Amino acid sequence: MNSNNELKVAALEWTGNSLRILDQRLLPEKLVYDEYTDAVSVATAITSMRVRGAPAIGIAAAYGVALSVMQHYSESDNWKAKVECDIQQLTDSRPTAVNLFWALNRLKKQLADQVGNPIELIRLAAEQIHADDIKANQIMGELGADLMSDATAVMTHCNAGALATGGYGTALGVIRSAYKRGLTQIYAGETRPWLQGARLTAWELAQEGIAVTLIADSAAAWLMKANKVDWIIVGADRIAANGDVANKIGTYSLAVLAKQHNVKFMVVAPLSTIDFTMPTGQGITIEQRDQNELLADCYINDDSLISAWNPVFDVTPADLITAIVTEQGVVLDPAIKGVRHLQK
Amino acid sequence: MNSNNELKVAALEWTGNSLRILDQRLLPEKLVYDEYTDAVSVATAITSMRVRGAPAIGIAAAYGVALSVMQHYSESDNWKAKVECDIQQLTDSRPTAVNLFWALNRLKKQLADQVGNPIELIRLAAEQIHADDIKANQIMGELGADLMSDATAVMTHCNAGALATGGYGTALGVIRSAYKRGLTQIYAGETRPWLQGARLTAWELAQEGIAVTLIADSAAAWLMKANKVDWIIVGADRIAANGDVANKIGTYSLAVLAKQHNVKFMVVAPLSTIDFTMPTGQGITIEQRDQNELLADCYINDDSLISAWNPVFDVTPADLITAIVTEQGVVLDPAIKGVRHLQK
Repeated sequence: MNSNNELKVAALEWTGNSLRILDQRLLPEKLVYDEYTDAVSVATAITSMRVRGAPAIGIAAAYGVALSVMQHYSESDNWKAKVECDIQQLTDSRPTAVNLFWALNRLKKQLADQVGNPIELIRLAAEQIHADDIKANQIMGELGADLMSDATAVMTHCNAGALATGGYGTALGVIRSAYKRGLTQIYAGETRPWLQGARLTAWELAQEGIAVTLIADSAAAWLMKANKVDWIIVGADRIAANGDVANKIGTYSLAVLAKQHNVKFMVVAPLSTIDFTMPTGQGITIEQRDQNELLADCYINDDSLISAWNPVFDVTPADLITAIVTEQGVVLDPAIKGVRHLQK
Repeated sequence: MNSNNELKVAALEWTGNSLRILDQRLLPEKLVYDEYTDAVSVATAITSMRVRGAPAIGIAAAYGVALSVMQHYSESDNWKAKVECDIQQLTDSRPTAVNLFWALNRLKKQLADQVGNPIELIRLAAEQIHADDIKANQIMGELGADLMSDATAVMTHCNAGALATGGYGTALGVIRSAYKRGLTQIYAGETRPWLQGARLTAWELAQEGIAVTLIADSAAAWLMKANKVDWIIVGADRIAANGDVANKIGTYSLAVLAKQHNVKFMVVAPLSTIDFTMPTGQGITIEQRDQNELLADCYINDDSLISAWNPVFDVTPADLITAIVTEQGVVLDPAIKGVRHLQK
């Protein structure tokens, strides 16, 4: 597999003047890219989960700022206020993934420092965020694969692949690197309610020519009990300074179960996922999504006795994590000293 | 709620000459009963999961034997061989739930002892199995509710309700009894892949006027971490003599997680679910169902790289169980001496 093949699945395609976003709600049945030319539409694409995954959300938002500047700079004297308003809408699009705020803050700072026409600067800055993410994923892929050189079987949860990032993937990047070195068995949890594992991870791995075995989320414990997995490998939506990790609902469950079954637990995320201002995971906002994601249509009415509790992330304490892999290096046993020392 | 109301949801209705089976595959959208007049069709209804739940399967099979005797006794000198053949088909309909084999063995024994026309005897015996199950459920409901008198919130998994039994339910029977005494919050796991929790338990509780909150199966750990449940309450498909419990996939996961979060874990099942010939849970056959239950249609083709691992039961070791509730009494800490002493 050459480097080009490794990037053949793309959540985001930047044309220079517009952002093409793969509508992940339609996968695996349909592969549809929609074209976006303004920031507000990009914010809507994030909120509605056409694009999801912490790094991909950050990159999409960065391109959203570029589109905002391109739209407003030439047409209005008041362009700065309009761009700020767009940035606010992008900020409000999803609450948990910190990459979103990281990318927007980086561009806001560059905008504030800029004198004269900002279009080229912001466009290049957004492209740099995208390119850096891909490069970080490739580095993490190798670092993670180094860690699990004796593993033959792994399980992942949700989708932390090319579809969730600028390309290559975080957890799936490690799995792809390890696969090239001889990893033979990959299990993916379905990841209810949105089925990112079944719809996205399975599809993405198959696109790459890699076989994958789906399981019901609740079968993971039985899989571990049967000694069928050596590592659980997941991405992250936000990592606190002490090493606590917010990620897709079910991650905490897998971490507790892994500890009980002596299965190792790896979190793979770029530095942009670390919130150095957040001392522990307890402070991380957990998004609650619409209960209707879990309810049959016939349950949805005003008098219904049937409701749903739908937190879409949970927080895994650092002491359940074997290793956090970043592009700056691997933190083994993050409970000991957290990840603060990675701050540049 | 009077006794009549308590039985208003019925998986099985015996007319005296035919068995009406609620097609649970169509719930909650449609309430459809189909009428069965021969044993082979009943076996097919069990295999195809029109009727499911260990006690309900046992009762359906018992009525299947009654239908077989009614069909073959008058029309053929060779009726015994034909009934035996039907019983074999019923035996082969599902592998894990022991209530099926228990009910069939009981009727086989009565048939062997009988001289003359067996129709009335077998019909009464099947009706007795059904009536005994309802009565056992009502007794277990009270015994289980006694155990959790200080609980305000519980979670259940799969469907161990009226739909899984002769009526009233095992785990849901306890929950209904506790609800009458002041239990306020009931969570139900969706129970992938077949969604018994979302489709059946939520529907059944709502039919009874009881509010219920659905969660994704993988959210259970996070629910426990948030101190939102006092007990996990489940049914069983087979209980070994040492107290190990085979039940719907995901039960083992919940039991491990409950132990880690100091949440109590109750199994509710009639004596007919106990396999006294099985020393431990390790010997229990775990049914693997079609992988297509987990796969999107577009993944199902000869060249597909995407497969699924679909065990539909798992085994929970006795040492993770706080109490096993039967109609003969409650076994606290079943790991200490198992359930052998309950054998009559």
